[in-house]
Order: sequence, then structure tokens, then C-alpha cells
Amino acid sequence: MADDFDVIVIGAGPAGENVAARAVRGGLTAAVVEDVLAGGECAYWACVPSKALLRPVELTAEVGRVPGLEPGPIDSAAVLARRDEVVSHFDDSGQVGWIEGLPAEFVRGRGRLAGPRRVEVTARDGSVRLLTARQAVVLATGSTAVIPPVPGLAEAAPWTSHEVTAATGVPARLVVLGGGVVACEMAQAMHGLGSRETTLLVRGSGLLGKIEPFAGELLARSFVESGIGVRFGAQVRRVERPEPGGKVTVHLAQGPPVEADELLVATGRRAATAGLGLGTIGLPEDEPVTVDDTLRATGVADGWLYAVGDVNGRVLLTHMGKYQARACGDVIVARARGERDDLPSYRDLAGGYGAPQVVFTDPQVCAVGRTEEQARQEGFAVRVVEYDLGAVAGAFLLGDGYRGRAKAVVDEDRGVLLGVTFAGPGTAELLHSATIAVTAEVPLDRLWHAVPSFPTVSEVWLRLLEAYGL
Amino acid sequence: MADDFDVIVIGAGPAGENVAARAVRGGLTAAVVEDVLAGGECAYWACVPSKALLRPVELTAEVGRVPGLEPGPIDSAAVLARRDEVVSHFDDSGQVGWIEGLPAEFVRGRGRLAGPRRVEVTARDGSVRLLTARQAVVLATGSTAVIPPVPGLAEAAPWTSHEVTAATGVPARLVVLGGGVVACEMAQAMHGLGSRETTLLVRGSGLLGKIEPFAGELLARSFVESGIGVRFGAQVRRVERPEPGGKVTVHLAQGPPVEADELLVATGRRAATAGLGLGTIGLPEDEPVTVDDTLRATGVADGWLYAVGDVNGRVLLTHMGKYQARACGDVIVARARGERDDLPSYRDLAGGYGAPQVVFTDPQVCAVGRTEEQARQEGFAVRVVEYDLGAVAGAFLLGDGYRGRAKAVVDEDRGVLLGVTFAGPGTAELLHSATIAVTAEVPLDRLWHAVPSFPTVSEVWLRLLEAYGL
Repeated sequence: MADDFDVIVIGAGPAGENVAARAVRGGLTAAVVEDVLAGGECAYWACVPSKALLRPVELTAEVGRVPGLEPGPIDSAAVLARRDEVVSHFDDSGQVGWIEGLPAEFVRGRGRLAGPRRVEVTARDGSVRLLTARQAVVLATGSTAVIPPVPGLAEAAPWTSHEVTAATGVPARLVVLGGGVVACEMAQAMHGLGSRETTLLVRGSGLLGKIEPFAGELLARSFVESGIGVRFGAQVRRVERPEPGGKVTVHLAQGPPVEADELLVATGRRAATAGLGLGTIGLPEDEPVTVDDTLRATGVADGWLYAVGDVNGRVLLTHMGKYQARACGDVIVARARGERDDLPSYRDLAGGYGAPQVVFTDPQVCAVGRTEEQARQEGFAVRVVEYDLGAVAGAFLLGDGYRGRAKAVVDEDRGVLLGVTFAGPGTAELLHSATIAVTAEVPLDRLWHAVPSFPTVSEVWLRLLEAYGL
Repeated sequence: MADDFDVIVIGAGPAGENVAARAVRGGLTAAVVEDVLAGGECAYWACVPSKALLRPVELTAEVGRVPGLEPGPIDSAAVLARRDEVVSHFDDSGQVGWIEGLPAEFVRGRGRLAGPRRVEVTARDGSVRLLTARQAVVLATGSTAVIPPVPGLAEAAPWTSHEVTAATGVPARLVVLGGGVVACEMAQAMHGLGSRETTLLVRGSGLLGKIEPFAGELLARSFVESGIGVRFGAQVRRVERPEPGGKVTVHLAQGPPVEADELLVATGRRAATAGLGLGTIGLPEDEPVTVDDTLRATGVADGWLYAVGDVNGRVLLTHMGKYQARACGDVIVARARGERDDLPSYRDLAGGYGAPQVVFTDPQVCAVGRTEEQARQEGFAVRVVEYDLGAVAGAFLLGDGYRGRAKAVVDEDRGVLLGVTFAGPGTAELLHSATIAVTAEVPLDRLWHAVPSFPTVSEVWLRLLEAYGL
């Protein structure tokens, strides 16, 4: 086995896999180093299992809104079994086979930088192999959940996204710290699958803080109506869990403590750079790796280091990591060939427009681009248009009491959209229309001729444009 | 009551309503003439009730694909009651109020042309009122179902889209003539709601003949698996129904006759021009009214006549009729003011790209733009890209055994999409992304930066672009 490769990728999540695939497509050799499972967090402990857990819950909610249908009970054991299936029973041989089939070399072990272009891989048996990269080393190690420094919290061994998505049972009572995507999705999943007391403790005053406020408000209303407790402005003072895996009590600055059988912490993530050897090449440890728009790390002599996905701290979303990875793999190839490296496809342009995101709750929450607040702060000539999704025929035909809302942020100087947010059942697939409109900067008067089919939820596009004055 | 208006609209369906709204918004006076119900076919006997009938059937199919859920029985009486609700119990007072609130005058009665700019309205009591239009008369009378000249068929008083969407019960056995959208949607609705023998008799060799063939193939497979009978190449020779409303027998050129309790004819529609007085202004009777891109009838001196929606024969889809209506109302205003009338928003441009359409079956079938065959016939430098939707993570997470397909038709000369077709559960709202891409002619290398969220069905966009070679 040769130990020299054109490209060495540390981390075989979706981002790492895509870098390798693009590099190999371009004629380079590549090694992919992974110490856990090829496929990464997304495939086993994030997007994929969480969606599998949420799907029956979402569908049951939809059934409940349609006269003539009766929502049945959810067989949570069957749902967990289906989850096991979609995560391939935590067996990564399929993914390893995919990497090897590129072809690229899959190296199982913990990779760390050991000076310029050098990667030291420590296998589980403790043996060490040294790899060297002719063209590039790409960091794609992702991120890990942050456990806030609350007394007793770490000792309580709380669930993070990792454990909750891999749960083998549903706790009767679940307390969730956080109000972001993971907190909201997993609270609703566990509640739907049988957790009879589910309580979110949210430090701020709303859910999904990075998205337009109305979305979090709609979601909070849905939570309360379905019996999920939400306490805003919650300051956690102390956590008690006398018996490992036993009852847990969360003490707050105000109000009664919350007692539960399990505790999920979903208060943020940090770039997985610990132990990655960044110090060996003069970069700060324990910080995201700063990159330019070609995903090349800044401050590294000769520019051989790249970072894609969560580890560069740009946007912590699988699809954006994959997108960066495609650009990164391609630009490494171009540079290796001495070709021009300034094509748009070699750059992370999408991140600049504002990454699209879908929250798979009921209601679904989808957003792309800038929020109104962001756009105003950046000095755009902003005009906002909103529309009640429940007044769209295609939406109310989805079910009784349909509730949802759409908001578009317009750049009046250029007549294009800066951001779009939808909250409502059945909007997940609607988002991509907005992603295209925002990213391709399609002028509003051109969008006017893109006629939404009747009766779909998409007709909200027409309503937004009419409300704008077209 | 004055009998002179700037604009007189005959037909208060969605298209007619929109012409009036835009004309009034532009400062003109308008009258809207309707002899049946304001709101039109769409609101009472087409899109709206059909979707209400299909929704529980679609949702039950989705539930059946999700482990952990059990599809329950559908209470068809409750579904029909919900249908009654969404069609406002066939009461148009809400729609009349909307028209009057524009404000425009609502004139109940049968409108017909009586020479240039003159409309004669015959009320139900036989009284006649003569209206005259200063600026324009707009025909928006829609279309009616064609009953083919098969011996015994008309005498059997078959259902058309009108009767099936307004059904007060579900026939135990239903035979359907046709294989287009209405035939497919209503066969599946009635079957799902309890028709235990549902048979489609299709003259051609596939379903949904105007859409890419793979879509009809997927749908036919779904029909057969769910127990809906499909006989292709069926030539109906004779229909027998000895007792009105009784058993009906359809005799075919080949194979055994089909016996059923009800017969639905869905073999096409024709422009509703009969009795409209087109002869009084020298236009052919019983033909669609030919219009230019501003929806103005050709061959009419002084250009005061317009036609929008089904009656002009361009595209028989509610949303396209409404789209035409907006352009039509606006251009009438511009011409009345003596302003320039050549703005893009005054023209039916979308029709030229190929209208978007969603078929609300399981699987859903969605298409916009040109099919491969159309594009080749028109001489484009065509390249086709296809992708298995079941291989998209966001699709297989929707349920076990997800089946679907996507096809994109690329114009290689310009690097833009000419047409996109999706067939698969959960694709209805995905279509609008394609509608924007096709209509706004977004270059493929720009679409590359519109990143689909993971895990949504929309990720098929990435797969199509990768398959294309990006």
C-alpha cells in the first residue's frame, strides 16, 4: 500500500466523500480517513435517522387534519426498526465499498495532521500509519455537540443528537435543553413516538432563532397544542442525576424544576478540530478552520490545506457541506493541473446568498437566503411581502385547519428576492423553488411568468407576487 | 343600473374573475356575467373537489408505506362531506360577494354576443338585458366534456368530470373511458373511496398521453398493484344501460364487455362556445376562439374581443387561464389608457414554455415545459438526463418501496432546461422549482449553486445536474 496520495481527506462524512469523489473524477488519487463510520454523522446520527423518526409523526399529524381518516397509534418499535434500516444497522460496509469503488483508499483510523501535507492515522489497535499528500489535505471532520458548562450536566451523561437519533426506546418523560432545529425536531419526534411528557427549556424567547420569528411562533403554537411543554427564558442552574441512566432533574433560575427520564442537550455544535493536530502547522486548535471561498484554509503556506463542511464553521448543514465539497474537490483538481481556478463552480457562492434549510417539524419550516433583519442590517433596500398560507387553496385542501405563512424579502434596488421563508405542512419540497429564485437572482417580473399549478401550496408564489403589486 | 361598462366578462370562473379584478384595479368598470355559479367549474366540479376527494386516498397510500403506521379505512361519507364544504355546498354567494367587492357588477344569466361590443344576458326567468362594452368583451366560458359518438353512450347519461366530482356516493363498480388526467385522478379517487371494481378503458397504449411516457407507466403500475383495472387499446363499440341510473355495460371491439354501476367519460373537453353568439360577429361557432399573445381574438375589427382560459383552446388548466386573465385584464387597461401595450406582463409567455401541470394521483405526476419528443420535433439540440427518485435519500425516507423518476430535457445550445417531469409521491410542490428554472431559463451552471436541502426529494436536482456532468 502506497502512503502517498494526491489528496488525503480526513473524515468520511458526506462532505469528505464528495471531495474524494470529485478529486478522483478529476484523475487524482485519494485516501479517505475515518475513525468512526464511513457515511458520517448525517447517515447514522443526524438527518437520516431523524427524518425516519419524524416521518410517521408528521404523517399522523397530516392524517389528523383530513376528515374521513382516523390517525392510528404509532408503533414506535416498528419506527425504530425502520430507523435501524435506514442507518444500515450502523454498518458502514456499503459506504466503504462506495469509497473504494471511486476508487479511493479507505483508511480506518483517527487522522491527525503531523506537519505540512502529512497525516498520521492511528488505527484502533494503536498502530500508526503516516500518509503524505502531494496536492491537498482536506479536513472534513464535522462537528460535535456542545455541552454547556452547567453544574451536573456533563455528569448526567445527557443525550445529544447522537444518542437521541439512535435511541432504542422512547423515554416516558423527556426534557430538552435548546430551541433550535435539533431540539425542535427531536422533541416532536419523541413526543409523537410516545414520550408523554416532553418539555423544551429554551434560553431565548422563541424557537428556531436563526429563522424569521413567525416560523418559530407557529411551531411553538403547534407544540403547545400537541401537548409539548415549552418554557422560554429558561436559565438552567443545575442538573441532578443520582443514578446513571436514572431519573434526571433540571433546576432552573425561576419556576419549578423539571423532572424527566431522559435529558437531551441541543444547544449548539462546535467544529470537530480537537486532536486534529492543527497546532503542528501553526493554526489555532479548537476553532473552526477559516477558509476562503474555494474552501482553502487561510494562513497555511503553499495552500495545501482545505476544510469542508461543519469543520470550517461556515454553515452547519449536510447539503452545504456536500456543496462545498464538490467545489473543493474540483478546485483541487484544477490547481493540480495548473488550470485556471477562478470558475464559479470552484467557489462557495451559495453560502453567500444564505443557505437553504428545512426543519422537518409539523409545521415544516423552510427558509433560504436572508431574513428581513439580516437584509436590513446589510443595508439592502428591503421590502417585505407576507401571505397567509392557509388562504391558499392548495394548502387548505391538504387538511382542515391548515395553518402556515410565507414571507419574502425583496431587494427593491434590483427587483430580486433576498430571502424566502415558508412555515406550514407540505412546504419542504416548495423550498427549492425559492432556493433557485434567490440563488439565481431571478427578477420578480420574470417569476411572474412561472405559473404555480393549481391547486398546490406553491400558489403562494402567485399570492406573494400579487401582494407585491405585480 | 347602467348597462354600459368598460369591460364585460362572460363567465365567472377563475379566469373571468381575474380579468375583472385586474380591469377594476386599473380603474375600469366591469360586469361579470354567469349563468351557473360564480367561481366556475374549477371551484365546484373540477380541481377543488377532485383534490378534496383525492387527498385522503393519497395520504392513505403514504401511510401504507411507512412502517409503524397502519392505514385505516376511509370514511367516504366524511370525505364527501368535506368535499361539500370545500365547494361551499354549491353556494356561490361568497364568490358573488368577492366580485361585487372588487367592485364589479355581477349579472346572473346566460350571456351571448349580440354584435360588436354587445352582450345579451338572458336571466333564468327569461328576461333579457342588453349590456354594451366601451373597451372590451372577454369570453371566459371555459370548456365542457366531450361525449364521443359511441352508440348508446349519450343515452346512458354517463358521468363526466362534473358528476363524478359532485358524486353523493361511490359506485360499487365504476368503468372509466379515458386515460388522461381526469380519468386517472377520478379512477383512483373512487377506487380509494370504495369502488371495489374500477376499470379504465384507454384507447391508446398508455396513461397521461401528453406527458413523458415513463410517468404514465409508473402510474399504470400503481393502478394495477392497487387493484384498478386498466385495458389499453380499448375500442368502445356500444354502451348499454337499459334502466336510467342502473347497470351499464360497455362493449368493446375485443375482449369481454365491462359491466359496472356507473360510467365516467373523460375523453377530452371542448371550448364552451356553443350558443355564445360568435356568429353575430363573424367568427366560427363551436370552435375555440383564436387569440394572440395578449389574449385578443384575431379577426375581430377594432380588437374589442378577448378570450381567456379553456375557451381559447390554448391550455386547459385553471392556473393558465388565471395567468392569461391577469395579462388580459392588464392589457385592456393599458389600451384603454392609450399606454404602450407591449410589456411582457401583458402577454401569455408562460404558455410558450409549456404549461406546468400536476396530476394528483399516487404517484403524483408533475411536468413543465416540453417533453423530449416535443423538444426534438421543434429542432432543439436536446440532451436528456434521468434519475431514479427512489435513489434519493429524501424520497426513500418518505416510505418503504418509494418509486419515482425524474427527467430533464436540456437545450444544449443554451445550457437551459426545456422541460422537467417528476413522477413520484411528494413531488407536487417540487414542480414549481422546475417551473421557475424552465420559465426563467436559468442556466444549468447557475442552478448548480441552488443547493437542495438534505434530506428532501428536491435533492434530485443535484442528482440530475451531476448526471448531466456538472
